[in-house]
Amino acid sequence: MNRVRSDATAAPPQTFGAVFAGLKPHMAALDRFLREQVQAFEPEIREMADYCIDTSGKRIRPALVFLSGWKADGQPTAELVKAAAVVELVHLATLVHDDIMDDADLRRNRDTAARKFGSTAAVLLGDALFSHALHLAAQFPTNEVCHMVSESTRKVCAGEIVQTMRRGSMHISREDYWRIIDLKTAELFRVSCFLGARLSGVTPAYVDDVARFGRHLGIAYQIYDDLADFYGDEKRIGKTLGTDFASGKVTLPLQVLLEKLPESERAALIEEICGRQPTQMAKRMQQMAQYEVFGTVAESVQQEIETAEAALANWPEQPPSALLGQLCEVLRAQMAVLNGPL
Amino acid sequence: MNRVRSDATAAPPQTFGAVFAGLKPHMAALDRFLREQVQAFEPEIREMADYCIDTSGKRIRPALVFLSGWKADGQPTAELVKAAAVVELVHLATLVHDDIMDDADLRRNRDTAARKFGSTAAVLLGDALFSHALHLAAQFPTNEVCHMVSESTRKVCAGEIVQTMRRGSMHISREDYWRIIDLKTAELFRVSCFLGARLSGVTPAYVDDVARFGRHLGIAYQIYDDLADFYGDEKRIGKTLGTDFASGKVTLPLQVLLEKLPESERAALIEEICGRQPTQMAKRMQQMAQYEVFGTVAESVQQEIETAEAALANWPEQPPSALLGQLCEVLRAQMAVLNGPL
Repeated sequence: MNRVRSDATAAPPQTFGAVFAGLKPHMAALDRFLREQVQAFEPEIREMADYCIDTSGKRIRPALVFLSGWKADGQPTAELVKAAAVVELVHLATLVHDDIMDDADLRRNRDTAARKFGSTAAVLLGDALFSHALHLAAQFPTNEVCHMVSESTRKVCAGEIVQTMRRGSMHISREDYWRIIDLKTAELFRVSCFLGARLSGVTPAYVDDVARFGRHLGIAYQIYDDLADFYGDEKRIGKTLGTDFASGKVTLPLQVLLEKLPESERAALIEEICGRQPTQMAKRMQQMAQYEVFGTVAESVQQEIETAEAALANWPEQPPSALLGQLCEVLRAQMAVLNGPL
Repeated sequence: MNRVRSDATAAPPQTFGAVFAGLKPHMAALDRFLREQVQAFEPEIREMADYCIDTSGKRIRPALVFLSGWKADGQPTAELVKAAAVVELVHLATLVHDDIMDDADLRRNRDTAARKFGSTAAVLLGDALFSHALHLAAQFPTNEVCHMVSESTRKVCAGEIVQTMRRGSMHISREDYWRIIDLKTAELFRVSCFLGARLSGVTPAYVDDVARFGRHLGIAYQIYDDLADFYGDEKRIGKTLGTDFASGKVTLPLQVLLEKLPESERAALIEEICGRQPTQMAKRMQQMAQYEVFGTVAESVQQEIETAEAALANWPEQPPSALLGQLCEVLRAQMAVLNGPL
């Protein structure tokens, strides 16, 4: 994969799937490993754990571990597979808890754990997944993985808490938004990259830069994801558009629209965000087009992508650099898809 | 404390408070340490974390760490304080999540986190407390603490899940009940004792026996606690009696009553447990008296206490042995209080 993908003359990949195609043996090893982990759970909850260890997601975080730890031979080492499992289990646990809070029925076109097992069991099941992730983290020779992952998990939770507290509130600044996505998304992207690089034994300065790449890619990705809630294709992203808006979550597109709207319209939109009036998705989409919200938000994505790329600029010869750089290309391509014919 | 308490001629202590009196410097150190930890949380959630790090509980688990790690000089070492903080934070996190699931408004005479911050924030806050506990666990020189605590946490969650799944169901055997309390309560008692002994550098065989003591004390304590839900003093235990019964939780007292009741009455009681009929607490208490349920359950407590004591029988010269043994005396005394004039 390394040779083909880092060929500068080839067209840049358009989808995460294209970049991840070279990770098939890695993801297969991860699947096997995760399935084996089910046996570590107490017999009474194995079936539930197995249900949550869903293998249908994009698995961006494990991919970051593998790509950041990429060596010349491109083989998935047992350590990388375990680290990938740790970050994926943390992510799956947060999804289980998110779906309780969002009262969501479906995720990836099937019942959420909360719907299938009840929200009470889902709270505990998420806890069990978290615990098992940390249990795996404790199997590394040093404390570092446990240390990083537990702190990271706390940050992800803090980000989600801040987001929850801000729901339906207009007292949210751009700084608040950045802080929330930095904690809830970028942090685990950062740690995924850190762990991959760290476990591959590269120099500490490169580990730091790869981690910084991960953080900014994470911010860019979350802004993209928030844009997709307005501009996405429901079938492709597998969820109803406008759910953030409807739940009172002020993401960057809405924030930019608020900044650009005239006073009277802004007041009306605030009423919708606060839940005092029903949301008018079609009207707001029309206004977003009118005020060119997409372009402004896209600029932010572009800036974060560039910051991510700059983090790796000094390390062109390191195998992960080119591979990780492709993720930036994919994100650019995905942004172009969002901006396509509606 | 050591000298006074292990004096065999003194009257055995009657309350946990009496045994814990000698732990005042330890608990003060723990309080300071826990309060300092609040600063480690993200600024936005510090106030919430501070609220959850409640210092009013009995702190049995930290006490087990301190007593199990007791040395001749009886000083609280930094390592013991940290280990005590880890198990207390795990316990507090489970309480935060328990209160969401039980829809409880009050705990220790003040609002639960779920009521104060909303259940959504409480789910995440519990997660953040868990994560921070593991983050502290990762600060020990070796992976062992992280390893033990994360596995233990998963077991506690598994126990709670099994208990939740069994609610309102009559398909629960005595084995099921034992399994549930072994996971949800005894496991963290066991690990608290393990960590205390382990960190004090005693021989592995003694560590194992202290851990075994903790497990059986935990089982005895949970049966006692389940009895208190029927026989306790509402003011003293700080909660309404019969809440387990009302929520369809079949604990040992109810199980014994079911075994002893004639067929027709058993069917009526099952209707109440399953929630198809309102619970008749007074009537069931009367039947418990008639069929001497207390005595049967008390026998189980007694057996577990004896198993716990037996675990330490070979180690009379070790300082923790006498101190831990006092906890058994307290539990016996507390059982006698429950059995007192109603």
